[in-house]
Amino acid sequence: MNKFRFLTAGESHGKCLSAIIEGVPAGLSIDINFINSELARRQQGYGRGDRMKIEQDTVEITSGVRFGKSLGSPITLVVKNRDFESWQKVMSVAPEDITDERAFSTFRPGHADFAGSVKYNQKDLRNVLERSSARKTAIEVAVGAFAKLLLKELGIEGSSKVTQIGSACCAQNFEGEIDVIRGKGDTVGGKFTVTYTNLPVGLGSYVHWDRGIDGRLAQAVMSIPAIKAVEIGTNPLGYCGSQYHDEIFIEDGKITRHSNNAGGIEGGMTNGQDLVISGVMKPIPTMKTSLKTVDAQTLEETEAHFERSDVCAVEACAVVAEARVAWILADEILLKYGGDCIDELKRNYYQ
Amino acid sequence: MNKFRFLTAGESHGKCLSAIIEGVPAGLSIDINFINSELARRQQGYGRGDRMKIEQDTVEITSGVRFGKSLGSPITLVVKNRDFESWQKVMSVAPEDITDERAFSTFRPGHADFAGSVKYNQKDLRNVLERSSARKTAIEVAVGAFAKLLLKELGIEGSSKVTQIGSACCAQNFEGEIDVIRGKGDTVGGKFTVTYTNLPVGLGSYVHWDRGIDGRLAQAVMSIPAIKAVEIGTNPLGYCGSQYHDEIFIEDGKITRHSNNAGGIEGGMTNGQDLVISGVMKPIPTMKTSLKTVDAQTLEETEAHFERSDVCAVEACAVVAEARVAWILADEILLKYGGDCIDELKRNYYQ
Amino acid sequence: MNKFRFLTAGESHGKCLSAIIEGVPAGLSIDINFINSELARRQQGYGRGDRMKIEQDTVEITSGVRFGKSLGSPITLVVKNRDFESWQKVMSVAPEDITDERAFSTFRPGHADFAGSVKYNQKDLRNVLERSSARKTAIEVAVGAFAKLLLKELGIEGSSKVTQIGSACCAQNFEGEIDVIRGKGDTVGGKFTVTYTNLPVGLGSYVHWDRGIDGRLAQAVMSIPAIKAVEIGTNPLGYCGSQYHDEIFIEDGKITRHSNNAGGIEGGMTNGQDLVISGVMKPIPTMKTSLKTVDAQTLEETEAHFERSDVCAVEACAVVAEARVAWILADEILLKYGGDCIDELKRNYYQ
Amino acid sequence: MNKFRFLTAGESHGKCLSAIIEGVPAGLSIDINFINSELARRQQGYGRGDRMKIEQDTVEITSGVRFGKSLGSPITLVVKNRDFESWQKVMSVAPEDITDERAFSTFRPGHADFAGSVKYNQKDLRNVLERSSARKTAIEVAVGAFAKLLLKELGIEGSSKVTQIGSACCAQNFEGEIDVIRGKGDTVGGKFTVTYTNLPVGLGSYVHWDRGIDGRLAQAVMSIPAIKAVEIGTNPLGYCGSQYHDEIFIEDGKITRHSNNAGGIEGGMTNGQDLVISGVMKPIPTMKTSLKTVDAQTLEETEAHFERSDVCAVEACAVVAEARVAWILADEILLKYGGDCIDELKRNYYQ
Repeated sequence: MNKFRFLTAGESHGKCLSAIIEGVPAGLSIDINFINSELARRQQGYGRGDRMKIEQDTVEITSGVRFGKSLGSPITLVVKNRDFESWQKVMSVAPEDITDERAFSTFRPGHADFAGSVKYNQKDLRNVLERSSARKTAIEVAVGAFAKLLLKELGIEGSSKVTQIGSACCAQNFEGEIDVIRGKGDTVGGKFTVTYTNLPVGLGSYVHWDRGIDGRLAQAVMSIPAIKAVEIGTNPLGYCGSQYHDEIFIEDGKITRHSNNAGGIEGGMTNGQDLVISGVMKPIPTMKTSLKTVDAQTLEETEAHFERSDVCAVEACAVVAEARVAWILADEILLKYGGDCIDELKRNYYQ
Repeated sequence: MNKFRFLTAGESHGKCLSAIIEGVPAGLSIDINFINSELARRQQGYGRGDRMKIEQDTVEITSGVRFGKSLGSPITLVVKNRDFESWQKVMSVAPEDITDERAFSTFRPGHADFAGSVKYNQKDLRNVLERSSARKTAIEVAVGAFAKLLLKELGIEGSSKVTQIGSACCAQNFEGEIDVIRGKGDTVGGKFTVTYTNLPVGLGSYVHWDRGIDGRLAQAVMSIPAIKAVEIGTNPLGYCGSQYHDEIFIEDGKITRHSNNAGGIEGGMTNGQDLVISGVMKPIPTMKTSLKTVDAQTLEETEAHFERSDVCAVEACAVVAEARVAWILADEILLKYGGDCIDELKRNYYQ
Repeated sequence: MNKFRFLTAGESHGKCLSAIIEGVPAGLSIDINFINSELARRQQGYGRGDRMKIEQDTVEITSGVRFGKSLGSPITLVVKNRDFESWQKVMSVAPEDITDERAFSTFRPGHADFAGSVKYNQKDLRNVLERSSARKTAIEVAVGAFAKLLLKELGIEGSSKVTQIGSACCAQNFEGEIDVIRGKGDTVGGKFTVTYTNLPVGLGSYVHWDRGIDGRLAQAVMSIPAIKAVEIGTNPLGYCGSQYHDEIFIEDGKITRHSNNAGGIEGGMTNGQDLVISGVMKPIPTMKTSLKTVDAQTLEETEAHFERSDVCAVEACAVVAEARVAWILADEILLKYGGDCIDELKRNYYQ
Repeated sequence: MNKFRFLTAGESHGKCLSAIIEGVPAGLSIDINFINSELARRQQGYGRGDRMKIEQDTVEITSGVRFGKSLGSPITLVVKNRDFESWQKVMSVAPEDITDERAFSTFRPGHADFAGSVKYNQKDLRNVLERSSARKTAIEVAVGAFAKLLLKELGIEGSSKVTQIGSACCAQNFEGEIDVIRGKGDTVGGKFTVTYTNLPVGLGSYVHWDRGIDGRLAQAVMSIPAIKAVEIGTNPLGYCGSQYHDEIFIEDGKITRHSNNAGGIEGGMTNGQDLVISGVMKPIPTMKTSLKTVDAQTLEETEAHFERSDVCAVEACAVVAEARVAWILADEILLKYGGDCIDELKRNYYQ
């Protein structure tokens, strides 16, 4: 992250989520409806719990945009938590409001609870779970929407889709699979794929390990909460070299390919084909079926705490991954083409 | 990369590979034999070509170490190319030595050739392949050896193993598989796993996306040449939540687990279990079986250029991944525990 | 900026200024009154205009703090602009609100107007001046207050004072000087000194140019709007070596000095003496006395636009510098001593 | 440092100094004679000691350049120490060579000795002084020469000059001043100015504190060993606003100025005028006249150790500053204009 840089903040039940983005060129048209539609996409998907209905996230911009155009100055985004009123006391900033209400102390396996409580020296695990919650991905999607607005100016478009839920592959019966799992009080993960089209050749590089766009994308996707595996293009297990590599042809004087096992990346660089990156999400760790665990206070064995949760959030996760890939692409575009305003970027890009 | 930072350099057939590491605490014992033994591990593995025999890499340290101890100042590593003499003219720095000898212009599918030539505006593809070659991983392993020396001071140890070659899984007949593939003039990839033991709880964080150690590790492994997939712990596809998550128990007053599907990472942090990360390598793109491609000069269709190559390099790749994981762990350790000299680090660590 | 990192945002007449700080250890007591008192210090000083009375800045924390303690997660700060109501229309985010009201087009010499309009391709110079205004230093002081809270835990204290206004040195008649200048419709700059006491030995380093704390401090002070010169310790012009360097003595078994020309820094590191850094501020470029300039639209010569302004803001500038020095010190402390929570930091620090 | 990034390494009496530069666009013509002439400039100047004669530094390039052109891959520079033979044993990397020869333990006031020995836990102060020595600026000048080659492609040229030595200002009798000081066995500092011409408008920014080019330049100059003060343009002390700010005129349809007190920077950005930055160097701390100090081993008072040294090194320091300013300018140019090869950079730049 060099030119498109940002920080995000916000607890799951805090007043709001926030982000500041520094590095968006001046003159970019900011379509708030588009940003809100991206937030809505994150909230959809079969298998989500009730909180999604409460939320209906919308973004407010409090700096960096004037009359619908970016100024080049840092952009502040705020997504309010709509049910903050009922959490105001429990999540208060003020020292005098201290309370044990909604404190909890049962390490949930698969969550940040245990390691987080050790690292940050916390007894009330709420002090860990509030930030380790996937709620924070809402503001990440908002940041991604800015990156997507930038990419759209250059004709670059992204999309994502779920390709597997539990044991059900591809276009098969995802909803049925989810219903079965819900019936058991369990949760289920799955796999999704993000695709970006119309990319230029040469984003990323082979010259130094940390310049490889494959590595940067893998970081962005693997660090999404609950992601345990990332693939670029076709998983090569079981292929021979003669089967896997995408041969190169000339058609109408242009370099072309008939396959895209590489997922659009060779040598750590985009090669002009579609960028294809997949992620595998583990089952959500909070579920009705109890897991054995330990109480942080008593150090006695107990069963994991249940908070309202989703059965399956792979679709949301795909939207988050799509947003995060946009971050990296926007940054790589800005590094390669420069430009302090959108016209300068486009001029350099289209030459 | 914040405290343990470095740059590497060097072309495949250039005079030498180099690295400068900044951030190693003072007072670390530098065992050159250990570093050389790591370099030797990278050169082993069934399926490698002849170059490995030429190389016999050894490291020279030209700064930052005195009387066997790090000084705290930047450490320079040099790995000479043993066959440089025969490449001296072709790889000359001097403008007057310019020659077409060993120039080549056929884009090899699966390599950086095409995108690299566009990005860096190169007609002689040697100007791309010399740096995009996996040769550069030799110096990366040397850098990793420094990180491993640091980790060893804290009792942290790493290892790696190949778990699949082509269609042959686990402890099965890797060598047979490789022989079959070699007989066909083809190449084959595979899967490997890196494990680090005795890690502290709380390396990495959930508080911001780029602080997650899972993401940083994924970047380090995915950006190794030819890696297309990365997994942390057990791939969760097909598991329900009640099966996947590692339950928590108390034994002798200590938190313990009976499984490690999480691969030692929950919430983007190490949780005290073994760190387990796997990578999938694609088949080496340079092979005797020709692939259809295009000539960079004539833009006519042709067949891919053959350079001396390996049939299978998964074992080497595992060693590189093990080294790269060490980079990230060393940096995370230094960020978490501070310390300008090894005694200060150890004192903070063991408290 | 590695461990204590942040972004700030906000236009001078926008809805609010914001900042997100990532890297504050968990468990730090957050005293809002202290933060507000720092904001108040920035607004004081003889020679300020009327806006200071309107502002009465106070901070709101919307994330990262619960019951008066930092959580380790990113902290969001918001300072509302109290007169936003009257600017709401002119500073609107919405494209449909576009208006020429309060647009202006006269490049003010000494300001960002000219270069900013070229860089960001802006015709309405308000799109430049709103962010290039020194108003943004209010939120920087709030960020600095967090750094100071951290430093206070370790007994490190900072202060600042004005040492020269125009031609009046030291404890002389600053107010008289300012009154004279105001009478002429002119502006005046001056010099200030920031001092931090009780620092540990060894913050910063000589091992690499960008590790030197002198350089980092110089960046932080020189990039304050209107600062043109920075000094560490005593300006050495006119001293011989035998006069300048601070001799070293032993008193009660402890290393001590009788002078501090070095300003507490030798070899790019703190040496245990007081850190002393000075800045020189130029006269504020907006003044009643007109300056010749050019109109951005017509490219005809004209006279510089006058906006409500201060005659002298050196005292405010000193407070900003004090805050910025705190940023750097907090980051260096965290890099050197590690610690994810305040107890761990203190344990490592006091050993 | 974002796009033009590098690390340097090397002890004063070690085998060699090294640097690796990552981020130089491909296709840049590398003139080794120019680099060596920059190294020679650093070694000149009245008042230098004998070591300068021994050194006659020249650079070797071992990666990243082929047939006189940069490849886009990292460039390795090596400057050998010509008198290494006589230091080989004392500076040996090997643990078995350990010796007390040339060890020393007297903290020299004004040097890194005291703080460095505490920070890195060193008893033999040679382990500190070898890296804290200004010798390392030789390789920094070599890195700067690469940056200058890049800037030259865009017509940007730099120079530097000494403006004061001790009490002798400007074109006055520097050599006489130095001779007097030498006669006393003392040392003397001075002031220098670096100027770059033909810069574009808009390098740097006001949008975030760390984007200001004034701050980045101040860091680069202040962190040079022995620098204690930095000024951009004219020191404003004593000027009123109406006198200081550079009025703007139109001549032949072009924005122009008749003064340059701002030193080419307004609002943290280049404004198209000459960039002017000055530094003040303290007297060299190693001198024949003894300073009172303490022995690191015995903690008894003693007098500072004398090593062969210069009387005055301001001219060398100016060359180092000129090189460091080139680093920052090259990085800012690459950030603003992008470009992976020199043709792409130039096309974007000249539009």
